[in-house]
Parts: sequence; structure tokens; C-alpha cells
Amino acid sequence: MILAVAGTQAMGMAFPLVIAIVILLTILTLSYEQTIHAYPSGGGAYIVARDNLGEFPALVAGAALLTDYILTVSVSVSSGVAQIVSAYPALFDYRAMIAVVMVMFIMLINLRGVKESGVTFAVPTYFFLVMIFMTAGIGLFRLVTGTLGPVMNPPQFNVEVLHPITLFLILRAFSNGTTSLTGVEAISNGITAFNEPRSKNAGITLIWMAGILGSLLLAITYLAVHIGAVPSEEETVISQLTRTIYNGQGILYLATILGTTLILVMAANTAFADFPRLSALVANDGFLPRQLAFKGSRLVFSYGITSLSIIASLLIILFDASVSALVPLYAIGVFLSFTLSQSGMAHRWWKSGRLKAGEELVERGSTLHYDKGWWGKMFVNGLGAVATCVVMLIFAITKFTEGAWIVLLLTPILVSIFWAIHSHYRHVASKLSLENYGGPGPHTPRHRVIVPLSGIHRGSLEALRYARLLSDDVTAVHILVDPAEAEKLQRKWEKWGDGVRLVMLDSPYRQFIEPLLDYINELMTLRQPNEVITVVVPQFVSTTPWEKALHTNTASILREELLTTAGIVITDVPYIVSEKKEEE
Amino acid sequence: MILAVAGTQAMGMAFPLVIAIVILLTILTLSYEQTIHAYPSGGGAYIVARDNLGEFPALVAGAALLTDYILTVSVSVSSGVAQIVSAYPALFDYRAMIAVVMVMFIMLINLRGVKESGVTFAVPTYFFLVMIFMTAGIGLFRLVTGTLGPVMNPPQFNVEVLHPITLFLILRAFSNGTTSLTGVEAISNGITAFNEPRSKNAGITLIWMAGILGSLLLAITYLAVHIGAVPSEEETVISQLTRTIYNGQGILYLATILGTTLILVMAANTAFADFPRLSALVANDGFLPRQLAFKGSRLVFSYGITSLSIIASLLIILFDASVSALVPLYAIGVFLSFTLSQSGMAHRWWKSGRLKAGEELVERGSTLHYDKGWWGKMFVNGLGAVATCVVMLIFAITKFTEGAWIVLLLTPILVSIFWAIHSHYRHVASKLSLENYGGPGPHTPRHRVIVPLSGIHRGSLEALRYARLLSDDVTAVHILVDPAEAEKLQRKWEKWGDGVRLVMLDSPYRQFIEPLLDYINELMTLRQPNEVITVVVPQFVSTTPWEKALHTNTASILREELLTTAGIVITDVPYIVSEKKEEE
Repeated sequence: MILAVAGTQAMGMAFPLVIAIVILLTILTLSYEQTIHAYPSGGGAYIVARDNLGEFPALVAGAALLTDYILTVSVSVSSGVAQIVSAYPALFDYRAMIAVVMVMFIMLINLRGVKESGVTFAVPTYFFLVMIFMTAGIGLFRLVTGTLGPVMNPPQFNVEVLHPITLFLILRAFSNGTTSLTGVEAISNGITAFNEPRSKNAGITLIWMAGILGSLLLAITYLAVHIGAVPSEEETVISQLTRTIYNGQGILYLATILGTTLILVMAANTAFADFPRLSALVANDGFLPRQLAFKGSRLVFSYGITSLSIIASLLIILFDASVSALVPLYAIGVFLSFTLSQSGMAHRWWKSGRLKAGEELVERGSTLHYDKGWWGKMFVNGLGAVATCVVMLIFAITKFTEGAWIVLLLTPILVSIFWAIHSHYRHVASKLSLENYGGPGPHTPRHRVIVPLSGIHRGSLEALRYARLLSDDVTAVHILVDPAEAEKLQRKWEKWGDGVRLVMLDSPYRQFIEPLLDYINELMTLRQPNEVITVVVPQFVSTTPWEKALHTNTASILREELLTTAGIVITDVPYIVSEKKEEE
Repeated sequence: MILAVAGTQAMGMAFPLVIAIVILLTILTLSYEQTIHAYPSGGGAYIVARDNLGEFPALVAGAALLTDYILTVSVSVSSGVAQIVSAYPALFDYRAMIAVVMVMFIMLINLRGVKESGVTFAVPTYFFLVMIFMTAGIGLFRLVTGTLGPVMNPPQFNVEVLHPITLFLILRAFSNGTTSLTGVEAISNGITAFNEPRSKNAGITLIWMAGILGSLLLAITYLAVHIGAVPSEEETVISQLTRTIYNGQGILYLATILGTTLILVMAANTAFADFPRLSALVANDGFLPRQLAFKGSRLVFSYGITSLSIIASLLIILFDASVSALVPLYAIGVFLSFTLSQSGMAHRWWKSGRLKAGEELVERGSTLHYDKGWWGKMFVNGLGAVATCVVMLIFAITKFTEGAWIVLLLTPILVSIFWAIHSHYRHVASKLSLENYGGPGPHTPRHRVIVPLSGIHRGSLEALRYARLLSDDVTAVHILVDPAEAEKLQRKWEKWGDGVRLVMLDSPYRQFIEPLLDYINELMTLRQPNEVITVVVPQFVSTTPWEKALHTNTASILREELLTTAGIVITDVPYIVSEKKEEE
């Protein structure tokens, strides 16, 4: 809905094209109505494709959608910043920076949790709707009464716009226009976020959204063409239109621009809900890192939200927040996922047509039963699939050099990554499988414990006490850099060592880790079968990073060095030294 | 010695100044001869100041020297690149990049160890000496025979050089000239690197070095003034002189420039030996992170070498490898450490004058005994101290705006950091002291072991086996995201759990760490006095970073979360899954 605002940049003869887009929107709305009711627990392209077409189409849809969610954030926020820049041209050079700050702001709101973000985003939405409908209404009234003149001081035409009026302009208008259609997928994907009855509410929302989007698209495009607004990076069409309708940049102009900016920035929020949700789904199926499937302490998918923000910000910086540079990347993915989702639905109706009346087929995502209207429904979804597929192919071919190649390259790469991750998880699982497993070995292995000591102090004695809890076979090890200290240490040990064996390792060259590793490796070669060695490291623990830098993390170094050595466990026993201020 | 090459940039009336510098060099050589013989095991300014003047002057000297070693690397390498750029002006724009690559190259040689770097650096040194003396010799011969004309196409005068011929030019020549004197300190600091008899060899080296340096300085400056060479960022004076002497840029020109470049880059090597050595000394006294005092597996101070390279590279990038911008930073530190070192030596002779004949005073660094020539020696070192102090003050005042302020700001900051580090170590040591310590508590605490399981597989069973080795009180814990799995897991546990108690924690919101933390915290509040809790985490271990990213490091997260909780130990039991290729 919101991206419609950015979708009217191509003015020349755009109005008929907008009508075509609205027709496409109608087809999509109808076919997604069916998806919503068939998948009451959420039917995004990934799920629909997975359940009806198989793994590979699902992964393609997943890759396309994840890319598009990222682009949604980049494009929406960049469009929002373009509005600000229209009102305050001095900010033009800082647009990428402003956009990144906005992305970070939305990220923080989303990391705080769903509830707060609902409230935060509702007010601007209504504010925008009031402002934009008022502006469009006044504009149409002035148009009818003949008082609406042409735009004053329009920005300079871009060179691009002077291209011959054929394929290029059609594509430009089409591509920008279609970005407004992604909200359709968002609703279908996010059904679970609606109140019960979910499918019904989601369906009503979908129709309302399509209605608002369609009427705004038509009204704004008609008005913009009438006043002779010019697509430009410096000033948005909305800005040109609004200042023409209100005869200048007064309070109503600023309010409309503010509302538009807010709503565009908030539009990114759709992606902040959808990207983590979809990546959790994909991760749960084992095609993305498992961490993405778990929620953090604020009950949000923190990993997903953070990843989305970082990648979107990088894109904004890379494309300098230029909407016209980002949009070509966008359209293919949307239509690819539309096509897959609609094909999946069509296939589903075809399957339901095979069933007998009353028969039920329980599948992963939903229950399938015979529907006597299956042929008509298949036709609607099939029409959607064909229409979106045609649009996608047109984009892929004609916008290839404008950025579409990036997406055509990126999607197979992403799918390959999904597969690589999946095959890794499967490999690990098969290696860890308990089939043909004889059990973890006998229960009475020898347990040898080594305690490396940097000195004899409270911290190391605590570690020693812990070590003695683990086994009776404890050896303390000290690296002796200065031979003069040997005797002093021995005396101290006699008092505090509590009878534990102390080994001193000479280190004439002031090395620390190497003598210890040599000693451990020697023990490893000499050890008996079933003997387990535990290294208990006294570790200074600090809460400030600079204090951390002053103490060697011996346990981490040993863990890294002995990573692939079986039969050895590294434990650190922390000793905590209170801060100076508490002491005084 | 080497920096002499960069030290002739100010031509105007520089020759008398060079004579003044040579006189200063003579004073320094004489007074450092005394230091070398008084401190046969290494007498850098830090040690001399520490042993004779106290902690604070020692730290000031240490800060000044460490800063200067870093600047030595930046300045020497930048000067070397300036020679290359003189021969190949097309490379001018890439000079900072070339310089950083060179620093990294020297770093790698030094990280490989001392022996290799000795060989690597000896050949270029002799090559340079042959080339530069040959060039100077031919130049002087042509001068005498009257065939040495003026320099052809000299680079444009800098605006700076057109300033009135007073304080400014004197300072410029002086500052650049004195950078050549830092080798004196380097020898004194690095005595231990010489063969036995060390003091004698070091002393001989010092005199040879001063002789070579002095004669080269005089000859090159005289020739450069005679031919009218011009100081410039684009072409070095050496390059102008050499191409005039050889009538063009033939093979001898290139060989001389190559030798000069190599020797300048190698000059940085002095700092690569001295910086880590000095920082190890300071670290050993507890004023820098302890890690700097230990050697790595190649028997070099890896931390010190790496830190030096990084900071020097940053400086090169910051000052765009401009020698004339870096040099003003340099001189103050050198002369500050000279002054402190010479004052310390003077004070030392004064003390020795207080002793009776034959009496000995054993001090930290060296043995002090009565020396009947103490008054003369005190005079020599005192003269050195006064001369260097005067030079330092002139620099600090007159070059303040040119960069000296950075050093005047940096030195106190560094000294404060030294103190902060020292006070941290002292605080920790006092907290860990065994004085008034009642011992680490009784020997029969209860030991409770918790094993969080993500699933029942070979890895988790290994961890369970290890856990049972530690204690009889073992509880396995599973986070239940999907309640449907509870029964399946329970059945699997009955087969493989070996009688261990299994607790399932519900996590309806797909959280993972939080329910586990809640459970552990509950146990912590319920635990009896003296009860120790160990969490044994089965941890997937991988050698490739991308595989690592696919597995949650639960142990690390728990360790971070429970960092400051006493009485709990986190252990990870690694399970290693072999690579696919080994499997097939």
C-alpha cells in the first residue's frame, strides 16, 4: 500500500499502465483471498510451494522472498528519506546516512518486542491515510473546478526520461508500480498475527488494502500527470503534487510529506515482522542456521531482526539510498514468489479435484478436502500464476542490465547456500545417530585432572579445590619462567598445596602456552585406554573489556589448541575480583 | 645511520647545522659508550631511568621510547617508499598502500623469528653501504675535478621552504637530522643481541655507526648543497644527488636508490627488535598487559610485533606516508629519552662517587662500585643530558603546532595508562593474596551436575558419560520447544539415558537459553552451602568458521550469562564430527 507513493515516478503516459497494475492487483487479491482461507495458519509462498510443489521450488521462493524483504527495508526507507529530501534539499548529500539511522531505529523498536511496535506504528498509519486522502480529495476538487494549475519550478528532467517512449517507460512504471503489490504476500504470510477469526480478518484486511492502494494509485497518478509532475531523484512526485495542490510549502504540505515519510519508514516494519518469521521457518526445516529459529529474551527473533537491518543498511550505503537504483532489484523476486505461490495453489486445487466428496487429505500445513468449486479456484490461482510469471519474465529480460542480473545471480547462490547448510546438518545428524551405536563406553574410566597455575593465590586454590572434587588424581602444573622462583614457590606450595602433586615446567625462553601443551600432549600419548583428562584452568573473570585484555584467557587458548583432540576437556573455574569502588 | 638519508631535506644553509648535529652525535656517542659498559645486560633509557631516577621518570622514558619505535617504523618505511616514488613518480598516489604492505612484510619476517631476519637484513645493509659510499666518493671526485654540475630539472620548491631564513629552517634541518641519532639508543637497549663480549662489541658497533653516520651526513649534505638539490615530497634529495652524480637514471642510479630503499625499510627492523623487547620489560614490571612479556611458539614476542605493525600502519595511513609530516612527531620523544637516560647515568656516577674505593653497591640492573674517574664520567653524561634537554625544549616550543603537541599530549596519556594497568594488577594481587586467608573451604562439598541436551545423540551421550564421571548427582535437561516431541524423547531416554534423571523444560515461545538460565538460577537459590554446580554442555566442534556459525555455542553463552555468579562452573565436552571427505 505504502510503496504506491514511490510508485508514480514515471509520469509520461503512466496512467494506462496504472490501470493495468490495478487489474493485476485485482487478480492477485482474488487469488490470495483463496490462499488465506486455505492456509489459516499462515500461507506464505515458501509454505505453499513447500507443501504443494516440493522442496526446490520452496527454497527458490524462500530465497526470493528473503531477498525481497531486505529490499523492502532498503527501498521503503530510501523512499521515506527521498520525501524528507524533497522538503529539505540541503539534506540530499546525507540521505544514505539518514536512511541507515532510520533502519537502526526501526531495528531497536522491533528488538524491544511486538507489542510496543504495534502501538508505535498504528498512529502514523492513520495520520498518513487522513493526510493523503485529504490531499487527493482537494486535488480532485480543484481539478474539477479548474483551479489546479501546472507544477511550479519542476525539477529537471533526468536524461533517462528522454529515452524513446516505448518499452523503457512501460517497464519503469510497471516495475515501480508493482512494488506496491508486495503487501499482498505480507498479509498471506503473516496470518498468525491477526486476531481470531484469522482468515476472515486477514481477508478483510487484504480487500481493504487493495481498495485503498488501487484508489490512491489511480488518483495520484491522474493528478500527477495532469499537473505535469516530473520523476526525479531530487524531488518526489508526491512532493510536487502536494505543493501544487496547496499552492506552496505550507503547514498542510509539510504534514502530508511528514505522513508520507513516516508511513514509508514504517513500511519497512512489514519486512521486520516477515523476514525473521520466514527465516525461522526455513531454519526450522534445516536450511538456515538453527539459531534463527529461536527467540531471544524479548520473545523476538533477535538474530533475524539484526541480520535484516545490517544487510538492508549495507544495500542503502551501496546504492546511496537511491530509490530508482534499488527498485529494479526488487520486482523480480516479488513476482517469482507470486508465481510459485499461485502455481502451488493451482496444483493444490487440482489435487483436491482428485479427491472424492467428503474425503480428506491431511498434509503438513493444512487439511485438504474435496471442493466442488475446485475448477474455478484452480482457474483463479492459475490466472494469477500466469500473469505474475509473464510480468516476471518481462522484468528479467528487459531490466537485466539495470540490476535484475544481481537477483538472477543471487537467487541460485542463496538456494545453494540453503542446500549446503541442509547437507551439513544432515551429515552431522547421521554421524551422531544412535543407530548401530554401541553406547558411550564403560562407566569406570580413569579421570586425570591437571591444574595449570600462574601463581599460588586465592583464585588458583579455588580451582584446585574444584579439581579435587572431580578426581583423586590431580596434578598442579606451573610454568617456570624464572628459575630463581622455583624454591620460593615450592615452599609456598608446601603450605597451601594440600598434598597435591606440583609439577614445574621450565620455560627458559619465556613461553607460556607451549610448555603446557607439550606436557598435556605427552600425557595424552601415555594415557591408558578410557582415561579422560580434564584441564581445570583458574580464570580471572572481569566484566569490563579493558580488564579482560590484561589477563590471558588460558582456557580459551587451550580449548582452541586442543580443539580436535578427543578425550580431553577444558574447564575454567572463574575467580571474580570485586571492583575497586566496592572495596573502598 | 639510515635515517641520515632522509635527514638532508633542508638544503638552504644546512651544512653548518649538519656540523652541529655531528657534534651532538659525538657527545651522545661518548656518553652512550659509558652506558653500554655500565649496563652490560642492556641499558635502554627505561632501565637506566628506572634504576637511577625512579619509577616515574622510567615510565616517561618508556612511553617516549615506545612512541618513537612506532614512529621509527612509520618514518623509515615512508622514507623508503619516498625513494621508490622518486624513481617511479607514477606510484606517488599509492605510497601509503605500498608502505603498509612493506610494514606487513617486515612483520611477517619478524614473526618467523630472529635467526631468519638476521640473514635477511644483513645483505641489504652491506649492499647499501657499498652503493652509498661509492656514490658519495664519485660525487666528491667529480666535485674536486670540477665536473659536477647543478641538478637538472629539480622538483618545485615547496612554499614552506620560502619562509624567512631563521628559526624555521634551523629547526627543520635539526629535527630531520636528529632522527639519525636514534640508532644510538637502539644499540644501548639491545646489548643482549650482541655476541660476547657484549659491551665491547656493542661499543665498537656504536663507534663505527657514529663514524659512518657522521661522514655520510657531512658528505651528502655538502654535495647536495653544492648541486642545488631541493627538499621535496615528490623526489628525495638522495635521488636528485644520485642522478646528478651519475648523469641520469641509469643502472647505478637505480642500484643506489634500491639500496637506499632497502636499507630504509630494513631500518624499521631496529624497532621490530626493540619495541617488543622494551614492552616485555615494561610488562614484566606490571605496567603493560602481561601477555606482552611472553613469547609465542616461534620464540618471538608475537603480541609486541603485531601491535607495533598495526599502530605504525595506522600512522602511515593517517599521515599518507608523508615523511615531513611524521618527522616532527619523532624528535621530541628521542631527545626526551636521551635526556632521562643521560641524567640517570650522571646520577649514577654521582652515587658511585659517594662510595668508598673497593666498596660495591648491588642494584637491580647492575653492580655499582667506586670509580675514581666518576667526576669526568658524570660530566660527560651530564653534558649529554643538558645538550639533549636543550634540543628537546627547542623542539617542544618551536615545533608545537607542527605535531609536537601530539607527543606532548600522548606521553602523559601513555604514562597514565601504565599506571592504571599497574594499579589494576596490584589490586587483583591484593585481593588474591593468601594473607589472612582461611583456605578454600571444606573438602566435601556437594557436587551437582547439569547436562543440557538439544537431543539424544552420540555427542550428548558422550557428555553424559563425562558428567557421570564428575558426580553421582547428574540431571539431564532438555528444552522442549515442541510439546509433541516430549513422549518420543522420553521413550528414547528410557533406552539410552542409563537411569539418569531427565528434566524437560517447556519453552512455548521458542526460547532456548532463557528457560535453561531460569532453571539454573532456581537451582542456585535452592542450593545448600558448599554445593558446587557444574553445567556440562555437549558442544559441536568444528574447524571451519562457517560450520561454527551453524551451531549455537551454548557453553559460551552460558559462561557469558553466568559470568559473575559464584559457585557455578561451565564445561563443554566437545564432540567432533569428521569432515565429509574423510567419510567417503
